[in-house]
Amino acid sequence: MSTVVSREKLELLDRQDALASFKDRFLLPDGVLYLDGNSLGPLPAGAAERAAEVVNVEWGQGLIRSWNSAGWFEMPTRLGDKLGSLLGANPGETVVTDTTSLNLFKALASALRIQQVDGPGRRVIITERDNFPTDIYIAEGLAELLNSVGAETGIRYEVKLIDNETELRAALGEDTAVLSLSHVNYRTGSMWDMAGITEAVHEAGGLAIWDLAHAAGAVPVDLNAAKADYAVGCTYKYLNGGPGSPAFIWVNARHQDRFWQPLTGWWSHQAPFEMAEQYTPANDVRRFMCGTQPVTSMAMIEVGLDIAVEAEMELVRAKSLELTDLFIELVETRCAGHGLELITPREHGQRGSHVSFHHPNGYEIIAALIERGVIGDYREPAVLRFGITPLYLSRTDIWDAVEILREVLHTGHWQREEFAVRNAVT
Amino acid sequence: MSTVVSREKLELLDRQDALASFKDRFLLPDGVLYLDGNSLGPLPAGAAERAAEVVNVEWGQGLIRSWNSAGWFEMPTRLGDKLGSLLGANPGETVVTDTTSLNLFKALASALRIQQVDGPGRRVIITERDNFPTDIYIAEGLAELLNSVGAETGIRYEVKLIDNETELRAALGEDTAVLSLSHVNYRTGSMWDMAGITEAVHEAGGLAIWDLAHAAGAVPVDLNAAKADYAVGCTYKYLNGGPGSPAFIWVNARHQDRFWQPLTGWWSHQAPFEMAEQYTPANDVRRFMCGTQPVTSMAMIEVGLDIAVEAEMELVRAKSLELTDLFIELVETRCAGHGLELITPREHGQRGSHVSFHHPNGYEIIAALIERGVIGDYREPAVLRFGITPLYLSRTDIWDAVEILREVLHTGHWQREEFAVRNAVT
Repeated sequence: MSTVVSREKLELLDRQDALASFKDRFLLPDGVLYLDGNSLGPLPAGAAERAAEVVNVEWGQGLIRSWNSAGWFEMPTRLGDKLGSLLGANPGETVVTDTTSLNLFKALASALRIQQVDGPGRRVIITERDNFPTDIYIAEGLAELLNSVGAETGIRYEVKLIDNETELRAALGEDTAVLSLSHVNYRTGSMWDMAGITEAVHEAGGLAIWDLAHAAGAVPVDLNAAKADYAVGCTYKYLNGGPGSPAFIWVNARHQDRFWQPLTGWWSHQAPFEMAEQYTPANDVRRFMCGTQPVTSMAMIEVGLDIAVEAEMELVRAKSLELTDLFIELVETRCAGHGLELITPREHGQRGSHVSFHHPNGYEIIAALIERGVIGDYREPAVLRFGITPLYLSRTDIWDAVEILREVLHTGHWQREEFAVRNAVT
Repeated sequence: MSTVVSREKLELLDRQDALASFKDRFLLPDGVLYLDGNSLGPLPAGAAERAAEVVNVEWGQGLIRSWNSAGWFEMPTRLGDKLGSLLGANPGETVVTDTTSLNLFKALASALRIQQVDGPGRRVIITERDNFPTDIYIAEGLAELLNSVGAETGIRYEVKLIDNETELRAALGEDTAVLSLSHVNYRTGSMWDMAGITEAVHEAGGLAIWDLAHAAGAVPVDLNAAKADYAVGCTYKYLNGGPGSPAFIWVNARHQDRFWQPLTGWWSHQAPFEMAEQYTPANDVRRFMCGTQPVTSMAMIEVGLDIAVEAEMELVRAKSLELTDLFIELVETRCAGHGLELITPREHGQRGSHVSFHHPNGYEIIAALIERGVIGDYREPAVLRFGITPLYLSRTDIWDAVEILREVLHTGHWQREEFAVRNAVT
């Protein structure tokens, strides 16, 4: 392998890279190889200026008037449409608001309401045992709330966890209300076939919710082509919106005027300024909003979105697969014999844009890497996770990162180190 | 009256004002008299710098490491404790997170769960017809969700609207689950007796939730002395946290380990990084969090909070009453005969920190005022609303604002004007 790949050859490929210029759109610190953009994307050029404009001009000078004059009020739908254009959404189907957890709650609650009419008796929420925990917790929380009322009556909602596609297909049946899956798994980087699984769910009479946290901006997504019912996701990973930037929810147009979701804040009302005492949901995706949004954090999302819109997803995906292939190859050849075990699918069709290895000392190894400027992250149990983001990583970055990993493993320095490397995001 | 009050006399009083120096802590635009701090507080000095630090240093340089190194992970509880200290809360009872609407949903859902055990059969949520609409909508949304399960069984949650204290006390009974009130009314500025009402609710076997959106930072609040059960509120009004800055929730310690609230995102888990498949709520107020928070918008809250902590509430309240008295007097004398009708209580004990007048052409008058640099706002139906904020308004500011109102009314210019002055916040 080392006879085939060399840093020089990778340098040559980098010079021919059609996406190379995007690296300048991000302000990465010196001495850092950032392989954690799947957790928190880096600062795009222009985001600090946008924040300063919101704070000094729109807030400081415009004050309350900026709800109209600076377009704050339209931001969730305007950014939603821009984001939706990356996901095969039509205008009016996506809104940027709240958090992924909250948006999943809205989608689940809305789907269950639909099933109360279309499929009475369908009360099972199917999700993956290895889903990001919040996705399981939110389903449990909703089921528990509903069961607290239905307890005496035999009405019982259930969260069923499956481990793989065989179990998933076996679980689908006449009690299935909704399937909630992450398109790309936060830990392993494995990817579901969205269209195929959605079709199977629909055939069984269920609805499909897709969490795109590790997919939006990372892999090609076409929600309408896949006939998905709902999608949620975050903007601070591959979309580079900033720490904790608000999330999004997409709702297939066919569900938008059916029932309301229960987080019925004023911003989801049909006429929020009439101050009516009766709740009437907006006629469109705005009914999936709730309360007032954090304007400064939301405004910065647009800077990252504009970059994502500009970058052609076909090129991004091709480079992502090339870089993840390269990373896997280099780790398996140059770091061989140190017990790293790939847990990310080798098959392109099943791979997102991050690569994970199992190692019993994963935590210490990641800590040692971070000290050396290679920022990946650690996830229980014993998983080293590396985000491979084509917009600001090159082939030589991948080479250099693997060389530092090799050095850490060869010298065994990680055995003497312990750092806090747990991060607060999926 | 004009023989008693004059601009000169007010100037003299302003020079003796112990709070006068706080005006320099806010960056108000030239030519503006800002009487809308009850809707969106102005930009405090230092907030732009704090935002720039978060964006450029913590996000840009620290990247994912800032969840630990910059204290992002502890921010909701750390700011919660600081905010709670303004409200008679003990440490560990308050968290800054999500929106007021969402926090109200959590409080209501938690209270109803407690009543399912402590007071089975108690299924009525009492609230005020003139409450801010989102507070009513959220109660309706939760009741509707629960009723969708209970429908076939006769289990039925109900939202009961009351118009005044007599109706409120009459409504309290053995079906009362929870009372949800805004401490200060968003439209009229009238204030409930928190301790007295809470006592009455408890005597009837109910729980009390207080929305402090127009109270926190504006009037003295002592949640523990009042024996309140839950409180929610926002940080972008009298606390000057910035547009749409995250809200807060306070939970009396006696309720914190009872059940969970149903928005069970990862951040409310006892051990969020163990990635357990089973949800176990945190042992404290952190169980009232949900998903990842907007860091930049949240960080700026601290700048406003620090000012509020520094200003003595006793002085703030005394000046608030003096300025609201002055505003009412000047409007009623110098603008007499133009049909403005006070709808804010004259009694100090029943008044918050904003003053509202009814006028059939309220919308046009406010528009004309805004064009002249006096920023108040308009609320349906036909209400002119003016926030009187002691930290950055002086007696001469009040005088000048009323003089401009007088000019608008005398010249009748408002009759020819129409502007978009609806604002997106309570």
